[in-house]
Amino acid sequence: MAVITYEPTSSQFAYTFGGLNPVREIRPGDVVTVYTEDCFGGAIDTVTDQPSKKRQFPYLNPVTGPFHVTGAEPGDTLAVHFLDISPARDWGISSLYPHFGALVGTHETPMLHRPLYERVWRYDIDTTAGTVTFQARDSDYSIALPLDPMHGTVGVAPPGSQALSTITCGSHGGNLDTPELRAGTTLYLPVNVSGALLGLGDGHARQGQGELTGVAVETAMITTFTVEVIHGFTASTPRLETDDAIMSIGCARPLEDAFRISQHDMVLWLQQLTGLHVLDAYQLVAQAGTAPVGNAVDPNYSMLARIPKTLLQGALPYEGVHERLRAVS
Amino acid sequence: MAVITYEPTSSQFAYTFGGLNPVREIRPGDVVTVYTEDCFGGAIDTVTDQPSKKRQFPYLNPVTGPFHVTGAEPGDTLAVHFLDISPARDWGISSLYPHFGALVGTHETPMLHRPLYERVWRYDIDTTAGTVTFQARDSDYSIALPLDPMHGTVGVAPPGSQALSTITCGSHGGNLDTPELRAGTTLYLPVNVSGALLGLGDGHARQGQGELTGVAVETAMITTFTVEVIHGFTASTPRLETDDAIMSIGCARPLEDAFRISQHDMVLWLQQLTGLHVLDAYQLVAQAGTAPVGNAVDPNYSMLARIPKTLLQGALPYEGVHERLRAVS
Amino acid sequence: MAVITYEPTSSQFAYTFGGLNPVREIRPGDVVTVYTEDCFGGAIDTVTDQPSKKRQFPYLNPVTGPFHVTGAEPGDTLAVHFLDISPARDWGISSLYPHFGALVGTHETPMLHRPLYERVWRYDIDTTAGTVTFQARDSDYSIALPLDPMHGTVGVAPPGSQALSTITCGSHGGNLDTPELRAGTTLYLPVNVSGALLGLGDGHARQGQGELTGVAVETAMITTFTVEVIHGFTASTPRLETDDAIMSIGCARPLEDAFRISQHDMVLWLQQLTGLHVLDAYQLVAQAGTAPVGNAVDPNYSMLARIPKTLLQGALPYEGVHERLRAVS
Amino acid sequence: MAVITYEPTSSQFAYTFGGLNPVREIRPGDVVTVYTEDCFGGAIDTVTDQPSKKRQFPYLNPVTGPFHVTGAEPGDTLAVHFLDISPARDWGISSLYPHFGALVGTHETPMLHRPLYERVWRYDIDTTAGTVTFQARDSDYSIALPLDPMHGTVGVAPPGSQALSTITCGSHGGNLDTPELRAGTTLYLPVNVSGALLGLGDGHARQGQGELTGVAVETAMITTFTVEVIHGFTASTPRLETDDAIMSIGCARPLEDAFRISQHDMVLWLQQLTGLHVLDAYQLVAQAGTAPVGNAVDPNYSMLARIPKTLLQGALPYEGVHERLRAVS
Repeated sequence: MAVITYEPTSSQFAYTFGGLNPVREIRPGDVVTVYTEDCFGGAIDTVTDQPSKKRQFPYLNPVTGPFHVTGAEPGDTLAVHFLDISPARDWGISSLYPHFGALVGTHETPMLHRPLYERVWRYDIDTTAGTVTFQARDSDYSIALPLDPMHGTVGVAPPGSQALSTITCGSHGGNLDTPELRAGTTLYLPVNVSGALLGLGDGHARQGQGELTGVAVETAMITTFTVEVIHGFTASTPRLETDDAIMSIGCARPLEDAFRISQHDMVLWLQQLTGLHVLDAYQLVAQAGTAPVGNAVDPNYSMLARIPKTLLQGALPYEGVHERLRAVS
Repeated sequence: MAVITYEPTSSQFAYTFGGLNPVREIRPGDVVTVYTEDCFGGAIDTVTDQPSKKRQFPYLNPVTGPFHVTGAEPGDTLAVHFLDISPARDWGISSLYPHFGALVGTHETPMLHRPLYERVWRYDIDTTAGTVTFQARDSDYSIALPLDPMHGTVGVAPPGSQALSTITCGSHGGNLDTPELRAGTTLYLPVNVSGALLGLGDGHARQGQGELTGVAVETAMITTFTVEVIHGFTASTPRLETDDAIMSIGCARPLEDAFRISQHDMVLWLQQLTGLHVLDAYQLVAQAGTAPVGNAVDPNYSMLARIPKTLLQGALPYEGVHERLRAVS
Repeated sequence: MAVITYEPTSSQFAYTFGGLNPVREIRPGDVVTVYTEDCFGGAIDTVTDQPSKKRQFPYLNPVTGPFHVTGAEPGDTLAVHFLDISPARDWGISSLYPHFGALVGTHETPMLHRPLYERVWRYDIDTTAGTVTFQARDSDYSIALPLDPMHGTVGVAPPGSQALSTITCGSHGGNLDTPELRAGTTLYLPVNVSGALLGLGDGHARQGQGELTGVAVETAMITTFTVEVIHGFTASTPRLETDDAIMSIGCARPLEDAFRISQHDMVLWLQQLTGLHVLDAYQLVAQAGTAPVGNAVDPNYSMLARIPKTLLQGALPYEGVHERLRAVS
Repeated sequence: MAVITYEPTSSQFAYTFGGLNPVREIRPGDVVTVYTEDCFGGAIDTVTDQPSKKRQFPYLNPVTGPFHVTGAEPGDTLAVHFLDISPARDWGISSLYPHFGALVGTHETPMLHRPLYERVWRYDIDTTAGTVTFQARDSDYSIALPLDPMHGTVGVAPPGSQALSTITCGSHGGNLDTPELRAGTTLYLPVNVSGALLGLGDGHARQGQGELTGVAVETAMITTFTVEVIHGFTASTPRLETDDAIMSIGCARPLEDAFRISQHDMVLWLQQLTGLHVLDAYQLVAQAGTAPVGNAVDPNYSMLARIPKTLLQGALPYEGVHERLRAVS
């Protein structure tokens, strides 16, 4: 086991999954600490900034990496366990960005209306108190919300020699934008190329379900993770495991298809782990599962199917890799 | 205040919201206890029954009522507070029903595949232990899930002289199918006709988010509620209030439009309660809100936008009606 | 055969399908001539009118009828053949209506933008020249478009004792808003109640595919039709027949589900008419069919699956009822 | 002007747009004749073949190219005019492919049903008679359909250093799968990288609107085209021009968003060409436009907004490039 630290220079960030050479090799079991930038590359730090003037596609959502994982081959599953995700700043930024968000006309759902005003909010992050403080722009209203750091974007190279913008998500992970991706969680991703080519970024001090405006409380992160490779098995979509639950992630539009993908994978996963008949598994997920929304704003939406581990009656997903990696912390 | 009890005979159930005469008049403040049947009218009680043989549209989802609420007029809001929702049986039923469910071809999403096998599950309900026990049909697997009684269907007469099947939901409420509609919750519905014409049914011993198979753990209920009328104000969509949170409900297809409706109403509601600028409210909901899925199977899907009451900083929705009705219990 | 004429007074129009007593009885074979109003009830006749001030839901889309059809019983199919659809005025009206249209925020797809300006266009209709003339509001641009009269709304009482607004469409027909519903066409509707209870209205001097703004070139019509009842057979969705083609109509959201419903019904219809294996029918529709969009703006969207009658190789839909009714003209 | 011919060897086909070096340079005005393979790379030629056994992702939908176009720079528009598209074989192939098609469960809309039988149809192509003959697999039914050769897939390198599978479509073109892309048509594509990097393939002897099964009548093509570069102007989505009409293409899910994108671009294009106020243009497209469906099966659906050129009242799109290129033939 090695302890690896990596901080990219401003020109070393990635804006696609796929199509890039690795920045570093990491081995299963290594403890890796990286610096990640926020979705604007740190370019927005005051409420008077105009995000669309300072940052445009494709220079949005910079990702740290990609890392070549020793021994990961197509057909394997990469397990990424997050040991720690800590804000690298005592502030975070959110904004309205033109033609982006769930309640405005967008590139995918174009409208004839003029865009809303572009507006920036700056949040104070207090890691000791565990708070993220919202301050209204137009009144004295202010409130401290719970700090809940997470990564919006974690992924590997996609299949078929594709290179996909870090703004979208899919079976390769990417811009999943789910608050469930916090420290203590293991993310499972299908490996499509030799070395997997893992990247991560888009830290959020916190995010609501659905990411309504398209922009969370964006901040730089110091993140520590470790990886393991499960050979010879791969799922069709990203999955998560925590101490209490397993989750399948669906990435698609419309939102019901993201729902279907996540629930379909969960039915098959539960069946495989417990030996239940597929219709029994379908029935049980229907009554015992929850369906947390990730984002309903990105080019692909994300939804999760979540069941408590009690349903597994002792069965261990991926032969206990989550418990092993959890023990590292 | 009167104490009213009402149990319909088998021919007295309603299958539409609208188009029907009231079965009883109730006054604001009355404590009303009713019997509601399950979605199959109690016709399915063994795993060898075939639901589609015993019950077909339109004789699905019977509703108790409608009740004429004294003083409720178009333009008002009806507040319905659930004091108690208790299973009337020690068992519940679930099933696969042909052409219904999120992972099969349906009337709305038709496919050329043959339907899955029709199959029934019978759950044991233990109100003392607070459990609902699933027993697999095809193996020995069994698990006790938490009992969490709720009503799938609560609504009033819709606008425009319409009569809508109890299977669908909309601005009038109806088949909302959200697990959030449990005892301790206040439901706000727009009043469209004199007397509102409130009906309720479709009790679930518990339900997962999304109601994956289209059928929850269905059971008869003994339910106690009370109502109040808020005069001269009405929202465009159903809303919920608990001790801790307020929620807006969106009913639509595709699922992102149910999401949009619920979030849009929440932004406006938060703005109205706190005096926040609409863009500040949009921003705050984006970071602090959750988005529980109701159902992703019915003719209209349902999603909720939920924020904690701490965001209201002391403001009381509907001048404190929830607190007043809560005190009745 | 009787010749029947019917013109409702302003208070005799219907705003729902279902929930109403018939205005008149008609018999199969009768030639029926009716007056229908435009979607605003004729209230808008100058470009300075504000539609949303003069007409609001539910007093939009008035329908003439319902007519009780002698002998039509649940499980039958009603064939409605349009002999003539002629504008009753030498002008038509179109407009932008707040929160309505495909490129603006709506009640189903709410946005935080302010509505576009409400604006009215008045078209000159020249039945001799066969033109509908558009005159820009903001410049000298003017163009004569082909006159192509049609009914946006034709339907029967829906199933399950429902009463549905004339603004929506479904298996009962209703606000189909397809330019294919012109003179010379036979519409097939499933009969849900004794007498079918047929209504029609919402005449358009012409309409683009999709009805982009939600409002076509609206005008009153003098329409002549005749009906026949096909006993003991009913489809699950409305169908059309012309001299050259057969069409199935799907009503749903999202638009791909309207597409699926229409294509699914067409595959089964082609199979039934030709004896093709269902997979052969699926293949043939895929290569030979077209998919005209009706509307992409109403509460339910509409799409059509259309195949040329040459594919039927002589088979006659509904035992030749279209040919028989066509001969009446 | 040069006459260029190019036929790739089996290892020279492309499976992405972007991420590849050009195979050849072409100059504006050159007449280029290329060979393109069918979507299965020619591997399926009898009805007993099993496509999913012979060809899997990512080796589906091979594309000829990419070609570097001299002088094309980001911000320009590439005009591609098709002079001739002729089948290179006297047969074409279609099939059902597992988890693909509009009326079956797919990767994006997963279902618990088993896949339909995989089945192949072989069509006879008679270029002299101008027919494509369907022969049922399960009966004697046979019919000659009109030959209407087109390319399903034409595109350039996408923006943001992405490489996208040839199976999907977007603003860069790609797998548009619209029957409107036939000889005599000019396709306009935004240029994202120096040289544009044009590729084309996926010839169809004919295709229905929607491409219901996901597979058209696939065949190899000998195709002749010429290109021109319009400097300093680019649209946000692909566009088409014929002698009679202009069309905008929207690529998205759900299908209403593909509709919105295409119609939104058409409103702006009509406004720009005629000087109409945007609301006048919106109104005119609503009454005079059609909305041909491309595909409703691929990872992104495609829809077109189409208006007759008479609406332009003499204005020439792109300063008459279509007329100039048309004159080459």
